Amino acid sequence: MMGGWAVSGYTISLADILAAADRVRGIIHRTPVLTCSTIHQLAHRSVMFKCENLQKTGSFKYRGATNAVRRLGANPAAAGVVTHSSGNHAQALALAARECGIPATVVMPKTASPIKQAAVRGYGGAVILCEPTLEARDRAAAEAVARTGGTLIPPFDHPDIIAGQGTAAIELLEEYPRLDAVIAPVGGGGLLSGVAIAATSLRPSLRVFGAEPLGADDAARSKAAGHWLPQTGPRTIADGLLTSLGQLTWPIVRDRVEAILTVSEEEIRAAMRLIWERMKLVIEPSAAVAVAAVLSESFQKLSNIQSVGIILSGGNVAFPFPDGSDGP
Amino acid sequence: MMGGWAVSGYTISLADILAAADRVRGIIHRTPVLTCSTIHQLAHRSVMFKCENLQKTGSFKYRGATNAVRRLGANPAAAGVVTHSSGNHAQALALAARECGIPATVVMPKTASPIKQAAVRGYGGAVILCEPTLEARDRAAAEAVARTGGTLIPPFDHPDIIAGQGTAAIELLEEYPRLDAVIAPVGGGGLLSGVAIAATSLRPSLRVFGAEPLGADDAARSKAAGHWLPQTGPRTIADGLLTSLGQLTWPIVRDRVEAILTVSEEEIRAAMRLIWERMKLVIEPSAAVAVAAVLSESFQKLSNIQSVGIILSGGNVAFPFPDGSDGP
Repeated sequence: MMGGWAVSGYTISLADILAAADRVRGIIHRTPVLTCSTIHQLAHRSVMFKCENLQKTGSFKYRGATNAVRRLGANPAAAGVVTHSSGNHAQALALAARECGIPATVVMPKTASPIKQAAVRGYGGAVILCEPTLEARDRAAAEAVARTGGTLIPPFDHPDIIAGQGTAAIELLEEYPRLDAVIAPVGGGGLLSGVAIAATSLRPSLRVFGAEPLGADDAARSKAAGHWLPQTGPRTIADGLLTSLGQLTWPIVRDRVEAILTVSEEEIRAAMRLIWERMKLVIEPSAAVAVAAVLSESFQKLSNIQSVGIILSGGNVAFPFPDGSDGP
Repeated sequence: MMGGWAVSGYTISLADILAAADRVRGIIHRTPVLTCSTIHQLAHRSVMFKCENLQKTGSFKYRGATNAVRRLGANPAAAGVVTHSSGNHAQALALAARECGIPATVVMPKTASPIKQAAVRGYGGAVILCEPTLEARDRAAAEAVARTGGTLIPPFDHPDIIAGQGTAAIELLEEYPRLDAVIAPVGGGGLLSGVAIAATSLRPSLRVFGAEPLGADDAARSKAAGHWLPQTGPRTIADGLLTSLGQLTWPIVRDRVEAILTVSEEEIRAAMRLIWERMKLVIEPSAAVAVAAVLSESFQKLSNIQSVGIILSGGNVAFPFPDGSDGP
């Protein structure tokens, strides 16, 4: 099954992803692939859920972060890593660095929630707050790199990150080699492009889809236009999917992804609730986007898809709790 | 590892549980065993979570129900099954029956929530409502048996139910044969006694514990007294653990369980929240009772326990949702 190595002009190839899979094995969780008969019925096909919400730090981001950190040579590694992120990549990189015994510095906008700041510190990361602008963020990150000598590991547009995220598809296909399709949510495209390279290189007939909120649909619009378009003014509860595709991820999404499916906020909320209630899995809105896409009419109309794998990308939601109180 | 068959005077033996494991294989989910480094740290030992919240119908009850239904001969099976339960056993038996193509009748108090009634009907069960008294319940169940010719399958005090629940321990020990201890919540004792027979028969040195809310502590009091005591006036959010031990389960709990650990409502809520937040698993309060027990000071003081397995018994909680609204 591991034959069919692809030669490509992209930033990474299947070989990079297989090497990443070897590199991260035993460090990351090999997450379970779960199924739910209720969802088979609702989707009118078999649906396999790759549970990256159960990954360390609560999202697939730990794969890429671990791969990137472990790819550093001894000298750069000693100086640590730097990133800018207010999301799952921040926590993932902080823990990946700590597991290697090296420092991590995370630049966050000072508007980032105290919970997210605390999560990064909880994994041993140093947090630097900046004004909530792109310019302030980049300046703060550059200053941190200059001061620490650390290596900048961006959240998605980096070969080692993309290769690391692709390992989720390797594991999924090891368990379900006969899947007809795979779908992943798309924000910056690190996950989707890694999954697309892995899946289409292992099995050229395997169809790869992205899922995106209607309120942050740059990937869908870029695919339709045939050229990269930025995301401006995103409006969605799927807070992991606000960003534009990157320079490295866009060509892969353009060529290796069949289509981007878009879903409404209402569909995202309903899908999130469905997975909590029926599968007993805490997933975040960004993960629910892919579930909503599989349940959508437009996806159900596609023929020749008996089985589809969904990457449940993460489970990091802010609690207060089910009964409406601060509890349970 | 499967040697060491025990001869016992109890209602079931290891042989019954191994036979049940064969019988239910491929019908029930083989649930994953998950770990979480945060919880290792909090518990000061390794903790392995057997995720029965991810079992079909959302709880371990599907194991016993499936085993009991599949043990019926062809003639009794055709007439279907009957039970009285307002909880997880009701849903489990309804689905187990439907999967065999036979009818299930469930007697519920008319005070049972519409959600629970709907869940049973959703799995194809017929619901009969009665007054919320023990007498009315038994009369309604007897009437249903007389009318349908069906077989009464009680929620816990039945050999096939106990043997079925014990299969959770078989699977857990297949994955982690070197566990020093196993802990399960205890209400009627079907799960705990099945787990105790399986675990102590496979490895006599393996220590088995029960976990109980302080507000429904009949098992702890019975163990302390050395004889069966009833549960009266239970007060706890752990709605799966309100009942007294049964005639069949009590002797096993008495002899094969080292101790019953009791926890407060506050500890149950905190443990439930911890598992939702850190493990991204939806668990119900009854499952959180065992987590709280492992985190308790009294359990942490026990020596010679490097690793403990917890049966996360179920995930059926009524939603409204994290943000306090009806959604996410």
